[in-house]
Amino acid sequence: MSEVLSAGGPQQARSMGGFEEVASAQCFGGTQLTLVHDSETTGTPMRVSVYLPPAAKAGPLPAVYYLSGLTCSEENFTVKAGAQRMAAETGVIVVAPDTSPRGDGVANAPDYDLGQGAGFYVDSVVQPWAKHFKMSSYISRELPELIAEAFPVKREAVGICGHSMGGHGALTLALRHPDTFKSVSAFAPIVAPSQVPWGRKAFAAYLGPDETAWRDYDACSLLRERSFSSQILIDQGDADPFLDEQLQTWRLVDVLKETGQSAKVRMQPGYDHSYFFIASFIDDHLRHHARILKAL
Amino acid sequence: MSEVLSAGGPQQARSMGGFEEVASAQCFGGTQLTLVHDSETTGTPMRVSVYLPPAAKAGPLPAVYYLSGLTCSEENFTVKAGAQRMAAETGVIVVAPDTSPRGDGVANAPDYDLGQGAGFYVDSVVQPWAKHFKMSSYISRELPELIAEAFPVKREAVGICGHSMGGHGALTLALRHPDTFKSVSAFAPIVAPSQVPWGRKAFAAYLGPDETAWRDYDACSLLRERSFSSQILIDQGDADPFLDEQLQTWRLVDVLKETGQSAKVRMQPGYDHSYFFIASFIDDHLRHHARILKAL
Repeated sequence: MSEVLSAGGPQQARSMGGFEEVASAQCFGGTQLTLVHDSETTGTPMRVSVYLPPAAKAGPLPAVYYLSGLTCSEENFTVKAGAQRMAAETGVIVVAPDTSPRGDGVANAPDYDLGQGAGFYVDSVVQPWAKHFKMSSYISRELPELIAEAFPVKREAVGICGHSMGGHGALTLALRHPDTFKSVSAFAPIVAPSQVPWGRKAFAAYLGPDETAWRDYDACSLLRERSFSSQILIDQGDADPFLDEQLQTWRLVDVLKETGQSAKVRMQPGYDHSYFFIASFIDDHLRHHARILKAL
Repeated sequence: MSEVLSAGGPQQARSMGGFEEVASAQCFGGTQLTLVHDSETTGTPMRVSVYLPPAAKAGPLPAVYYLSGLTCSEENFTVKAGAQRMAAETGVIVVAPDTSPRGDGVANAPDYDLGQGAGFYVDSVVQPWAKHFKMSSYISRELPELIAEAFPVKREAVGICGHSMGGHGALTLALRHPDTFKSVSAFAPIVAPSQVPWGRKAFAAYLGPDETAWRDYDACSLLRERSFSSQILIDQGDADPFLDEQLQTWRLVDVLKETGQSAKVRMQPGYDHSYFFIASFIDDHLRHHARILKAL
């Protein structure tokens, strides 16, 4: 599905802070970048997509991190969600990282739901995964630091959003790193990975058999211990084929009722798990983040 | 870049008029379909993407055909252009066909700019291409007939748009079939295929060495002979790497000046040839078509 894009040979790569440019295109008056850098945290090259809205030329802006789901790279959201239009309109920088370390020297599994493309936003403590799979520290510490050094980000106005496995990542990273992330939203998140097949398989591999260590990466468990400072926004399609077995949104709804955490959980009739669903509601999510982050 | 979409096995295919459903997803309150049918014109199965906006439930609507460029299938535009939002807002059905017949029994070439994925929207008269490569008749006759039978299309309110090779297709098919297409626009079109390497290679293969036969498929030649009933809209990025050698927009600008054909040609500073460019201006194109088609 890739189109012919360049007639000439490779262009000279530009450096931006700690990043090298892989690709750049103008979009809605701003710039859509694909970047790569050598991550100290994962010990691998990591790709990341950054959209700079037109207002980025004039000074620091809020930023929203978007975490993708199983099998995705930084590219899926970048080309499929149509987020640039509203990011340009609201003046928000959008950062979409890859979902795991990758490469020949990186552990992998034949399954789509473990290994490369399936980092689950945890810091693994079990080999062979522990060598490179440190996505929690990468997303919450190294990447925001590098992004803020390279681009005009208001460090106190950063939010996080994600889809499916990335919705789990957004919720858990926001709850665990409230100094870094001030707004959070999710599309069709895995809300209780300790209780569902995708999460149990990944956590057993990455974190080991002691399930008490899983709680730090389980949004439902975390919400029983701590609250988040702004309203949580969640959209979930009721025609999503993963809803019953893997996503189980009702577990989160129960915890929200128990705890009184401010949240808006919208069951969207007829929508599935695809980027057609994400594209339909990405504007609402970016407005949600912009409203909270601009008031800080 | 494909995500995990379905947990279960293959669903039972639905039939819609002459089409079988390959995939369906709700998007912006409407339905994004991927369909397949056995084309009498090409003698092959042909895939086509159809977006039905919410208003399609209430009665006949205008339709806009979108023709893709080299190497693309029906999928690129469908997942990358973000057209569904404005199609839902304006109440326009969007139809995105494949760019050629495909399959093991279909002639092909090792090059990206000839054969499967590169039909150039002509009816080939030279074997081996002539057996299946009849994209002109397919897009202008068979497909609109089947679409209007299967979906609530106002047959007198149909427009056509395209990108690159598909921009060439949109311009030439609109000029040659004004009874079928009442509005036309293009992104970065090949405007004079008879004069540029991509076009000359394809036309020599598909149409033979007699260049007088090429004129019917050359927008600049056609515009010297006939006018179009509504304003032509064209967007072209000035950072497009194909502008100088393959697109040569100035040739069209000269013909428009000579003939007085109503047209708006916008050189867009900083934009390249990618879907980031198309996404940035697709709203304007859909509004252009909706304005003309709704006034009919």
